[in-house]
Amino acid sequence: MKTFKDPKKLQKWAALRKREGAKIALVPTMGYLHEGHLSLIAKAKAMKADEIIVSVFVNPVQFCPGEDYEKYPRDEKADYEKCKAAGATAIFFPTPANMYLENHSVYINEEQLSQGLCGARRPGHFRGVCTVVAKLFNLAHPDFAVFGQKDFQQAQIIKRMVRDLNFDLDIVVAPIVREKSGLARSSRNTYLSDEEKTRALAISRSLKELKANPAQRLSSVVKKLTQAGLKVDYVEAVDVETLKPVKKLGKGVAVLVAAYCGKTRLIDNIVI
Amino acid sequence: MKTFKDPKKLQKWAALRKREGAKIALVPTMGYLHEGHLSLIAKAKAMKADEIIVSVFVNPVQFCPGEDYEKYPRDEKADYEKCKAAGATAIFFPTPANMYLENHSVYINEEQLSQGLCGARRPGHFRGVCTVVAKLFNLAHPDFAVFGQKDFQQAQIIKRMVRDLNFDLDIVVAPIVREKSGLARSSRNTYLSDEEKTRALAISRSLKELKANPAQRLSSVVKKLTQAGLKVDYVEAVDVETLKPVKKLGKGVAVLVAAYCGKTRLIDNIVI
Repeated sequence: MKTFKDPKKLQKWAALRKREGAKIALVPTMGYLHEGHLSLIAKAKAMKADEIIVSVFVNPVQFCPGEDYEKYPRDEKADYEKCKAAGATAIFFPTPANMYLENHSVYINEEQLSQGLCGARRPGHFRGVCTVVAKLFNLAHPDFAVFGQKDFQQAQIIKRMVRDLNFDLDIVVAPIVREKSGLARSSRNTYLSDEEKTRALAISRSLKELKANPAQRLSSVVKKLTQAGLKVDYVEAVDVETLKPVKKLGKGVAVLVAAYCGKTRLIDNIVI
Repeated sequence: MKTFKDPKKLQKWAALRKREGAKIALVPTMGYLHEGHLSLIAKAKAMKADEIIVSVFVNPVQFCPGEDYEKYPRDEKADYEKCKAAGATAIFFPTPANMYLENHSVYINEEQLSQGLCGARRPGHFRGVCTVVAKLFNLAHPDFAVFGQKDFQQAQIIKRMVRDLNFDLDIVVAPIVREKSGLARSSRNTYLSDEEKTRALAISRSLKELKANPAQRLSSVVKKLTQAGLKVDYVEAVDVETLKPVKKLGKGVAVLVAAYCGKTRLIDNIVI
């Protein structure tokens, strides 16, 4: 497995491999890899990519003031070993300084899908996501990039960016990977105490119950989360394409949850 | 010379040519081609591009309300012939509908260099320019793209976008092409009556005089333009890299002018 730190070196190599006819997959991550990330690499492998580039970068621009940028968990060594074992062919560890040069002044804004949900609660978050992902696309020359469904809004926004800016690649969205308990895998789960982990199960459980019985009201989800001692950020049913709120649960509808368990913000979702 | 109307077809062909090892040049234009544009094609040819793709697209997103989008001159047939004669190998005529699909919602903003000069007078203009140029980059897979120095601020902003979003290509800026009289070539010159054309010469003449004698004050340029019956939009001396105003003319300084001649807004510049 190759290791790159310098964006220009990654780009040069990727461009060469592309010209040689290699099929390139990109798996953008913030590192501290878990089973969810590894499933994205497995997906790239199953799609017969010749090169699977995993980027590991805690992107400062997508964190809002007061968020957990500084304390976001990092473990480059473990990430390296996990990528290698999972079949990645290259790992990219850029730094904030080589990704955002002096006087960096160009940003990408998605102006519709990012208005609600996490976009409304985390101003500038998707601007940071779109900007860094576009940079990674230009650096890695992927034929396709794999994102996780756990970040449902993010995946829809990235798809829209690819369409609207004509990036010459496909977006693949891989299903949520859960712990045995049902909890959606997330690097932020590491913040949770055992007791919080148990309380956090209310999220996946109530979404599962909602999927089994879509006649329920969303307020029942809110109630269950609150009863478990979580602080609800939002529980919303939206059209999967437009992300606009819908009143009735049914096909083509996603239910998205963001809730605080202690100080940790968790997200999860189901598509009905 | 190949002709493309469908962005996807251009993209497929350009990706194929890239994989075949062709060196691709892109010359983005709004059409109604004049000697200035043809010099950009000649530059691409001199740089030994295997494919020279000229895009002809009056991009609605870079026009502000009340500007000349509707009446901007168009002549696809003449553009086709001129490109062919100049040695272009492909011409791209997209439409607003196939460049901006329903619910287009992703835009690129440059947040420093676009604050002053034309950016301050034409809100949203450079957002439209950056967005369409990024789209063209992704569609045409150029190794380099050629822009004219007449749009000095635009060229600097595009260079910044390429750097900040890591586009894998070079930006080449070609010198201003002037009519014998000194008037900078522009598709908008077609709006000018003969009498206006004569008055408009005050712009290039006063810039030339300033370059010959940089001890002059900028106010002398303003005075000359006003005396010629032009309405000055701005006359500014800026650092060529940062586009920040400078007090003293000297090396690394550009003087930029925008002025109305009748209803026609003209721009010009010199680098000292």
